[in-house]
Order: sequence, then structure tokens, then C-alpha cells
Amino acid sequence: VGDGFLTRLDEFSLIRMLTANKQSKTLLHKHGVSVGIGDDAAVASISSGHQLVMSCDSMVDGVHFHRWTMRDEDIGFKSLAANVSDMASMGAIPKYALISISVPNHFSDYRLKRIYKGIYECANLYDIAIVGGDTTASRREFMLSITIIGEVETNKALLRSTAKRGDQLFITGVLGRSAAGLDYLWQQQKTNLSIDHVPSEWRGLVAEHRKPRPSVEAGRILLRSNACRALNDISDGLASEAWEIADASHVSILLHENSLPIAADLAAYAQTRGKSPLDWILYGGEDYSLLGTLPPHQVQAVEKALQHAGLEFYIIGEVTDEMKKEVSILDQTGTMNRVEKKGYHHF
Amino acid sequence: VGDGFLTRLDEFSLIRMLTANKQSKTLLHKHGVSVGIGDDAAVASISSGHQLVMSCDSMVDGVHFHRWTMRDEDIGFKSLAANVSDMASMGAIPKYALISISVPNHFSDYRLKRIYKGIYECANLYDIAIVGGDTTASRREFMLSITIIGEVETNKALLRSTAKRGDQLFITGVLGRSAAGLDYLWQQQKTNLSIDHVPSEWRGLVAEHRKPRPSVEAGRILLRSNACRALNDISDGLASEAWEIADASHVSILLHENSLPIAADLAAYAQTRGKSPLDWILYGGEDYSLLGTLPPHQVQAVEKALQHAGLEFYIIGEVTDEMKKEVSILDQTGTMNRVEKKGYHHF
Repeated sequence: VGDGFLTRLDEFSLIRMLTANKQSKTLLHKHGVSVGIGDDAAVASISSGHQLVMSCDSMVDGVHFHRWTMRDEDIGFKSLAANVSDMASMGAIPKYALISISVPNHFSDYRLKRIYKGIYECANLYDIAIVGGDTTASRREFMLSITIIGEVETNKALLRSTAKRGDQLFITGVLGRSAAGLDYLWQQQKTNLSIDHVPSEWRGLVAEHRKPRPSVEAGRILLRSNACRALNDISDGLASEAWEIADASHVSILLHENSLPIAADLAAYAQTRGKSPLDWILYGGEDYSLLGTLPPHQVQAVEKALQHAGLEFYIIGEVTDEMKKEVSILDQTGTMNRVEKKGYHHF
Repeated sequence: VGDGFLTRLDEFSLIRMLTANKQSKTLLHKHGVSVGIGDDAAVASISSGHQLVMSCDSMVDGVHFHRWTMRDEDIGFKSLAANVSDMASMGAIPKYALISISVPNHFSDYRLKRIYKGIYECANLYDIAIVGGDTTASRREFMLSITIIGEVETNKALLRSTAKRGDQLFITGVLGRSAAGLDYLWQQQKTNLSIDHVPSEWRGLVAEHRKPRPSVEAGRILLRSNACRALNDISDGLASEAWEIADASHVSILLHENSLPIAADLAAYAQTRGKSPLDWILYGGEDYSLLGTLPPHQVQAVEKALQHAGLEFYIIGEVTDEMKKEVSILDQTGTMNRVEKKGYHHF
């Protein structure tokens, strides 16, 4: 049991410390959690007329996040948020999460506590019950693997494989801000400023990177509209997600560069860096807006429903072809260029 | 994207290679899987009148397994088996699993394929649909995190917190064989023999360590008996699991050394090593039998039901006290000794 590694018995105290009294009984009760953390498994209910939706996502220290860009609370928050986004992209309601962490020797309880603080901040914001997990020792790396379980009305889940020729392509939020925030943090790393110090003008970009807000409400509105054909979340960038829909639905997609909304802070930041925001929009990723398709005659109704809820909606292109899988962009000169099948890579 | 790390786009081909056509459509259909691997999340149903049961468990290369004791197929098989055992210990039926792996640069596709082969071997044996997962790069360590989701009749799950004074303590299989198998493999490591070479007399011990068979059927029989009070799986050894029941149920537990069954191969192996098998039985772990309690008047009926299914059943002690949490063992001289609160540690 030597060398300060976690032992199985220490694990219980550690888990208790990290998880006890972090969520209201009301939340657990509302989600029908009859056995939570503390037994071999959790027990809970899903609503009648609903199906289970299940997904998992891992983050590795030094690969998916870095100490000079993410504070510990951000690591926790964003790891769960990435999972929540997978529920949003199905039109599902997130309900339960299980947290698996692997912790090296040198990792302090203090850091762990802050990471869990971020996890619970996101969980409480999205009304998700943390019902279990596993804490293991690792030799060198810190790793966080989360499984999320939600529910969706039977046979209503929104897929990426159901886009049709003639559909309009939409997004539910501006893109590229998370990648610009990350770019700012990498630039700042060259200085000696604390990672807590972010000038007010770029704070929105950095917050988008560190504490993204997945689009659960937009997903639910899209599902209830009965109009949405295909849906994806934009975790790996617009280009990569458009390719996923094209590949899965066997269609071609055409983006209109002129229609892509550019946030004011993104435009301003891009200017200070002498770059075009388009690269971040297409290839940046981690925006966690939704990308979807719907038939043209439904556009107005869906736009209205989203705007009524205070949410954004932009038509940015169309589904042009069947059988041929291709993603292109019509640039500002009227030229059609192929969009590269590349996404956000954590290297 | 450099240095041969997995990229997000490579990930799709890799996952396809590892998971395509590994399970029958019948299995997926039977479990109501309407969306499997390939979208942002999987969609499936649970049976009416049932609750969800959820659990996760991780294994880290060099911490939970070693190259000189476990072949790649074993790593995959056992990682899922450990999760299946958590379902067994609740009396639940395992249905779905999500596989999250973190893979360093130098890890070959060949090894990954063999690990997945073991995962699917276990999944198909226990009728579990692999419905999702995540594949990420790590910098140095190989890690496997699995979430398992099952179902149990509403309000019927078997807990560890419900033992009562006067209950008899039982196990559903002999203990200590996995730990003895591991001991053999560590001894063999000092020689130059291949890890595939195991003499026939110790093959059973080694198989118990590498490919344990969780006790799903026993758990289901115990649940249906309506007699079982508390239940745990013996993943961390008899001592540790008895302590878990004592702590969670606020009771004392007395083990009878004379009642502990000792397998013939375990006894023979212990003799060659000049050791007592008791240490492996109490502190060895990874046996994946079940440890539970039930009222004395129910013992005969439960024993009969298990034996009818060809399963084992041994009474090994009793619940002696309420309020005071303690685990003791009555040794062969009639002396009562405190059982240490220690379990199997992977170090």
C-alpha cells in the first residue's frame, strides 16, 4: 500500500469527501435516484414512454487540457459539459452521470476537490444527478472519464444520419469563440501573467473555452418542433461536424461563408492577431452549439420557437446532393471550395 | 496531429475496426438498442417495471494489470467482468456497456484489437450490448474505463446496507483462487517461461485470475428468492467486503474459519508455497463470488434454488450485533480475532 498511492479503503473516504452533500435531495428525488453513491451500483428510474440515451467522454491531462489554460474547476466543469453536449445533440434530457478518475501519486486532494467543485457546478446547472464513479490510482497521468445517461421520448432521438437533400443547414450559436479563447490563453502563456488574469475584452472568449454551455434547451426545442432532420453538437468544429452529417446521411453539404455569423469579440480578437476568424469557425471546435438540418418550410417556425426562448438560430448553408458525400464552402468571391475533413485535435 | 497520436478522424476508423460486426443483431434487438455506436450517443430501452442500474470501473496498465500476468484478451475480458460483477451484486441484469480507452502513442493497433476481442468475448458471454465509448490519446499510460448499465425490478435491488442481526452470512463460491493464480504468475515471472505457459494443475487458478466469471445468475436467483437481505460482490477480498456490509448496515459480522471452503487446487498450491490459504481467502480479492446475508429460516430454500441451478452456496458466518460495526473471525482453536479492514491493493 506504499508510496502514498490511493488504497481501496482510502478511496471511500476520498469519494465521501468529494461527493457528500454536493447535491440537493430534491434533485436526486426528482430524478428517481433510489440508490446513489455508496453501493456497488446506483439505481434510478427513467420516465415511461422514454428511452435511455448513453454516452461517454474522457479527458486526459496534458492532452485535452493544460495547466496554463484551464483552472481545476474548469477541468471538472468542461469534462461534464462535453458529455452534456452529447445529450443536447440527441435532443435528450441529461439525468445521471458517473465520474471515473485516475489519479497519480503526486496529485493533491486540494486539486481533486476543485475539479469536483467544477463537476458539481455543471451538474447542478444542468440538473444532473452524479450517481457513481470510480477512483483509481494511475502511475503518471490524471484522467477523467465521464458517462452520462439521459432520456428521450421513444423513437424521437435526433440523429446525424437523417439529413435530406434540400434541407437547410443551421447552427444555434456563433462559432469560433472557444478556439479564439484558447489561442489567447496560449499567447498569454508566453507572458508571466496568472491564468486568472484575463482582460475584460477577452473574458467572454476565455469563458467560452473554459466553461462552455451545452445547448440542451435548444436540443429540446428542436426535438419538440418535429421539424429537425439531423443534429450534431459542434465539439470538433463546424467542418468536422458537417462532414459527420454528410458521411452518416450520405449527402453533400454546402456552407455559405457570407452567412456565418461572427461575434464582435471574435472579430476584434482576430484583428489583434492579424488572422481571419474563419479558421477558428471552421476548425476550432469546442463551441458546443448545435448543427442541424431541417426542411425549408419549417425554418420560420423553428427560428421563432428558438428566439422565443432567447436562443440563437442561423441558416448557414444547405444540403445539396444525395449519394455523393462532400462538404464545400461558397466563399465571398462566389467560388466553391472543398472544406477539409479535419477537426480540432488536442495535440 | 503529429507524432502518430490518434486524431479525432482516425478515431472513427479505429472504432469501426474495433467494434464493427462484433455482436449479433439479435442481441442488439433483444435489448432494444435503436441507436448503437456511431452517433453522439446510444439510444435503448429498459423493460417496464424496471429501474436502471449503473456502475463504472477503471483499470490502469501497470496498476491494475501487468504485462507479465495478463494477456491482452484477459485485460479486456476482466475489465468488463469487473463491471458485470457490480450488476450481479445488485441482483441486476447487465444490458449495456460503454468503453472508454486512453491509448499512448506507442500502443499498437494489434494490442488494441486483442483487448477488444476480450471485451467482446465477455460481452457476448453475458449478453451485454456494447453501445458506445470514447477513444482518446494519452501521453504515457494505457487506461480502460467501462460503464455498465443494467436493469432490476423496481425497488428490488439488493444492497449492502440491509444486513440484520441474526442473519446468516453466505458466499456463492470458493474464495482465494484468483489471488493464488496471481501469486503463481508473479512467481513464474522470475523464470523465463512465456505467460501462456501454465502447468495444467494451476491452470484453474490462473484462469480464475485472468477471466473471472461474475455471478449474475446467482444474483438473480438471490433477488427472486425474496430472502436475501444484503449483498456484495467480493472484488476486494472477503475481509474488505464483510467490512463494507458491516459499515453500511451498522452491524458486526463473525466469520467461522472452519466453515470457509478451500478449493483442492488452492490447498495444493498453498502447500507448494508453504503458505496458509487463509490469507488469500480473506485478503486476496477478485474472486467475484457474492457475499450476502439472509435470515436463518430462509437458508435451506435459497441453498436449494442455487444448487438446482448448479451453483455453490456456503454459510460462513453470521451477523452478531447491531450498532457496533466490527468484523471478527472464530479461528480453529475457538479464539475470536479481529479481521483487519484491508483489501486487495493493486500495488
